[in-house]
Amino acid sequence: MAKIVECVPNFSEGRDKEKIEKIVDEVRKVKGVKLLDYSSDADHNRTVVTFVGDVEGVIEAAFNMTKKACELIDMRTHTGGHPRMGAMDVIPFIPVREVTMGDCIEIARAVGKRIGEELNVPVYLYEEAATRPERKNLADVRKGQYEGFFEKIKNPDWAPDFGPSEMNEKSGCTAVGARVPLVAFNVNLNTPNIDIADKIAKTVRFIGGGLRFVKAMGVKLEDRNITQVSMNLVNYEKTAIYRAFEMVKMEARRYGVEVVGSEIVGLVPMKALVDSLEYYLQLENFSIDQVLEHRIAE
Amino acid sequence: MAKIVECVPNFSEGRDKEKIEKIVDEVRKVKGVKLLDYSSDADHNRTVVTFVGDVEGVIEAAFNMTKKACELIDMRTHTGGHPRMGAMDVIPFIPVREVTMGDCIEIARAVGKRIGEELNVPVYLYEEAATRPERKNLADVRKGQYEGFFEKIKNPDWAPDFGPSEMNEKSGCTAVGARVPLVAFNVNLNTPNIDIADKIAKTVRFIGGGLRFVKAMGVKLEDRNITQVSMNLVNYEKTAIYRAFEMVKMEARRYGVEVVGSEIVGLVPMKALVDSLEYYLQLENFSIDQVLEHRIAE
Repeated sequence: MAKIVECVPNFSEGRDKEKIEKIVDEVRKVKGVKLLDYSSDADHNRTVVTFVGDVEGVIEAAFNMTKKACELIDMRTHTGGHPRMGAMDVIPFIPVREVTMGDCIEIARAVGKRIGEELNVPVYLYEEAATRPERKNLADVRKGQYEGFFEKIKNPDWAPDFGPSEMNEKSGCTAVGARVPLVAFNVNLNTPNIDIADKIAKTVRFIGGGLRFVKAMGVKLEDRNITQVSMNLVNYEKTAIYRAFEMVKMEARRYGVEVVGSEIVGLVPMKALVDSLEYYLQLENFSIDQVLEHRIAE
Repeated sequence: MAKIVECVPNFSEGRDKEKIEKIVDEVRKVKGVKLLDYSSDADHNRTVVTFVGDVEGVIEAAFNMTKKACELIDMRTHTGGHPRMGAMDVIPFIPVREVTMGDCIEIARAVGKRIGEELNVPVYLYEEAATRPERKNLADVRKGQYEGFFEKIKNPDWAPDFGPSEMNEKSGCTAVGARVPLVAFNVNLNTPNIDIADKIAKTVRFIGGGLRFVKAMGVKLEDRNITQVSMNLVNYEKTAIYRAFEMVKMEARRYGVEVVGSEIVGLVPMKALVDSLEYYLQLENFSIDQVLEHRIAE
């Protein structure tokens, strides 16, 4: 079975189609790498790319994309709704098959080193690749954003892991990390009352005393006149989908509200699905090797 | 995405390792085909093989295996606990990816024709490939077994679909068919009373007035001192795993018995798992294209 690493880089251009295509083309050009998805948001002025490949391939593709993004994007004139600190804003590597988190940390370091040295862009390692606890959380690293980093970088606590110790005016700086796959999971409630969705979100999420690896917020679905608890499961191996789902259901009961549906947004690893099905069917000794498609792909 | 057909041939040798390997080797030799599994049962004196491949590959491998089985196995001296009618007893073709049931019916016809004409073995098409309604069910086709077929074949209603109209003494006859994947699914009950497992099995299965595509029987698990409703879901697209599971649970209640676990035996298509998870999580608009591994395998 071939080693497969996933990479989900986010770069700071979501409007200029020509530039976006040129940056994404750097992924298409690399052998041993497969582009799975990319989507741009004009309001955010940002593009999220998903690709997979072998170790050498993802390193090559991630670096080449960053080089092209630094060429084509000028952060001095960048505006957009999403927090960002650089032309290539963030590059997470995710283990998918026959690859450990340790391997992905090494990949993040290798890519970070090249970006720092060859592109002269300050690099911060984050999540599993972080070199200090306060750099684990991407939101903490990115705090202050591009505009604030000219000051932040002077603080010795925020000396970059790779690259120059001063800001790159045109390209900003870049976060490179390793993490488990993230599952975007939303649960719909039969109430138009956003306060209820918000209250439930606050009880299920980590910072509210809820589940360790859940981030959540209430969202209104205007066209259906219902609300939604919108969640990110940032470690589905430790906080499974079914657990987040059942907890929302349980909390909804106190408001006399019912769950009327759910959705998984974007890609999800097979194991995350199987984990939850094992719970509901009380499956014993099930192995992902029993999934026909998994065996075929070996 | 490449076309993939699954083939699960059963041949009448489960004891002589050397013969078994020679027959299975015929699958290994064919390009474009992947051997996923084979297991022999000495009591049944029978081996079940699972392989997948492209259309040309599975036709070649299925025919070559049959040829080798007819060379090495002599039905005149065969004994075993499992019903059988030929050296190569039964060959089902199953659509897996980018292949329709119609394609598998054509494959079954192509293989059946070659077996009949080149190996001089009478061939019966069954299940979706059947040419008459009474040949749909494999158990009906095989009724009388090898020993009884010398008479049965003389009945015009049982004239073979391909090959000679009289029995092949050494090799018997062969059933070739097309069907959807079968899911072997067992539900464990916290009672040692086999009568209860049997009664539940009878209510959930088709012939007892239960679910259309469920075959079921009660089984005792001696070492755990519990019982089990052992099921074959012969069309998981129409009778989903969760439905069989919930029905066993519901029926168990009348005896004050609880479900303490379940198991899926052997291989299962990803879609069968996803269908049930969609039910439990009330998932809306989920597509198998969202499964990361599925996208990678495309």
